[in-house]
Amino acid sequence: MIDREEIKLDEILDGIVPVDREWIIKARERTAQLVMPPRALGRLHDISERLCGIYKNLKPSINQKAVLVMAGDHGVVNEGVSAFPQDVTGAMVMTFLKGGAGINAICRYVGAEVWVVDMGIIPELEPGSIDGGDRLLVHKIAKGTANFTKGPAMTRQEAEKAILTGFNLATEFFNKGVDILGTGDMGIGNTTPSAAIGAVITEKSLDYMVGRGTGIDEEGLMRKRNIINSGIQVNQPDRKDGLDILSKIGGFEIGGIAGCMLAGAYHNRPVMVDGFISTAGALIAHTLCPHVTDYLFAGHRSEEPGHQAMLEHLKLEPILDLGMRLGEGTGGALAMKIVEAALRVFNDVLTFEEAGVSEKET
Amino acid sequence: MIDREEIKLDEILDGIVPVDREWIIKARERTAQLVMPPRALGRLHDISERLCGIYKNLKPSINQKAVLVMAGDHGVVNEGVSAFPQDVTGAMVMTFLKGGAGINAICRYVGAEVWVVDMGIIPELEPGSIDGGDRLLVHKIAKGTANFTKGPAMTRQEAEKAILTGFNLATEFFNKGVDILGTGDMGIGNTTPSAAIGAVITEKSLDYMVGRGTGIDEEGLMRKRNIINSGIQVNQPDRKDGLDILSKIGGFEIGGIAGCMLAGAYHNRPVMVDGFISTAGALIAHTLCPHVTDYLFAGHRSEEPGHQAMLEHLKLEPILDLGMRLGEGTGGALAMKIVEAALRVFNDVLTFEEAGVSEKET
Repeated sequence: MIDREEIKLDEILDGIVPVDREWIIKARERTAQLVMPPRALGRLHDISERLCGIYKNLKPSINQKAVLVMAGDHGVVNEGVSAFPQDVTGAMVMTFLKGGAGINAICRYVGAEVWVVDMGIIPELEPGSIDGGDRLLVHKIAKGTANFTKGPAMTRQEAEKAILTGFNLATEFFNKGVDILGTGDMGIGNTTPSAAIGAVITEKSLDYMVGRGTGIDEEGLMRKRNIINSGIQVNQPDRKDGLDILSKIGGFEIGGIAGCMLAGAYHNRPVMVDGFISTAGALIAHTLCPHVTDYLFAGHRSEEPGHQAMLEHLKLEPILDLGMRLGEGTGGALAMKIVEAALRVFNDVLTFEEAGVSEKET
Repeated sequence: MIDREEIKLDEILDGIVPVDREWIIKARERTAQLVMPPRALGRLHDISERLCGIYKNLKPSINQKAVLVMAGDHGVVNEGVSAFPQDVTGAMVMTFLKGGAGINAICRYVGAEVWVVDMGIIPELEPGSIDGGDRLLVHKIAKGTANFTKGPAMTRQEAEKAILTGFNLATEFFNKGVDILGTGDMGIGNTTPSAAIGAVITEKSLDYMVGRGTGIDEEGLMRKRNIINSGIQVNQPDRKDGLDILSKIGGFEIGGIAGCMLAGAYHNRPVMVDGFISTAGALIAHTLCPHVTDYLFAGHRSEEPGHQAMLEHLKLEPILDLGMRLGEGTGGALAMKIVEAALRVFNDVLTFEEAGVSEKET
């Protein structure tokens, strides 16, 4: 049993091991017997086999699904990096709780619960006095990050706390029986820290990594690149040190997402990566512990241009590619449908022998 | 009311009109109000808006789903074009009826009924004496096509009958309340006629269009290209005449699939295109009536290399791209999950006004 008050980040990182290849090999043997040409369902087989490895089980099933939408505000919004005003963060949190946002519609369809975590938004929302507030978990680290063009976004202690908060919350969900966890984000301005993290970790240029987020214009895009550049110059994050990067140019919700991903790897449970912000969280988690990607599934390729470089750095192939760029966890949640379908194929299709069908002549 | 005994192919083709742009424009207006950045869910919006156009309804819903798996045998198998023996066609039909194949597993997950149509397989299967035979519809046009390297695969009358059979069956399903229809195929050797159809209609080279199907080796691949080339040389199909192409180098199940697609367009119902064979059916339908593609959704991009050229010819963008190459309707059926999710977003997400969230500042 894990004592959630006590576990240290180092213990988490030491406790994560690569997915067990033996289970994957056994799963591939079952796939080879299914009544279809060899591996004819392509990536559905890769998905189901990796799930067998993660769960250490040749009859894996997904019953409970949840998405944690991590919310935080960003001091850098003062520099004018977003097309939306900062109070939209809190307003969208209220919309999630009301069940009216994109992530709610998709999760109802997918059969996943949506929980919202206040990792550090500016407004003080009281779960007891809000419509749907029983799905709001308040773990506010601060009322938004500091403006990273003037110094670090948060302290190293706060960065560690953000990760541990995500880890502990995800651990609770896994302990309650959640079989697969989606990671979502809300935070006006958060493509800015995400692009900064992406640029530092992947070493791609800002021209490539910085996109329009929710929809800034050409001038806004140039300003955003300059702001990210000064954030990196002022803070000089160490690209080998995930905590350093998160604290200097990150966000509370990004740390929380990284913590959820480490929890999946630690507890042998799959975690869905969503878009640009969630993948920034994955980059932080991967910098802390490279094995984490064995437990991650990339839900989709975002329209945000730098996302592809992030996914390549993580060696994750996105499941969907539908031009989505909403965040909130929508891409990861939608891709759960494909992940579940992959398991249904793995579990339900007859073997050549059971079906009485001749195998390939050669 | 349509009298299924009477309708002629020309009447069908005359009865198909482009999707109504007015409904799509109205649907785009609703999308613009949803509480998210403009069109942030990318292709999900395109899908839901096109469905509004197809159904002529701003609150479209999908309740009943079905997949028709069209089965046929191919005389050209005698030339040695497949990695599997010809009796696998009938054996797989039995497996579909038993519920044990890939399409069954996916359709159970998707909530779609699977029906199997004997469009022209060699064995005589008796629905009454087979496990699951109540889902077998026998409309055998002949016991397999003729070997198209020696002359036409079927007569022009048989080609027309295959299309009308698909049209009439799909019409029955739509009349019974099916809101979206998937098209699947089974027929050992049927990537050969499909590649031939693809090469003739898209005018791409056989090097590009002909792939390994269920898994032939390099020598088999060269033989398959030569066989297709001689089929085209011997028959000289007219690339502007869908019936001529279908009769000379096609297959009964491909004609049936084309008929299902024409029925969707005729009755204002969406039809899912699957992989290489289903898309060959779409090419035939499109050659007969270009408006048909307004009613088609391409479920996925197949691993079969020529598939991409077929989709480009039809100007259809695949929903999924998962390295699948099974056929049976699996890609189209799986993509129904994305289509349904798109509708849920369209119907369920609140507007900015309903959510009380500020729109973009600019």
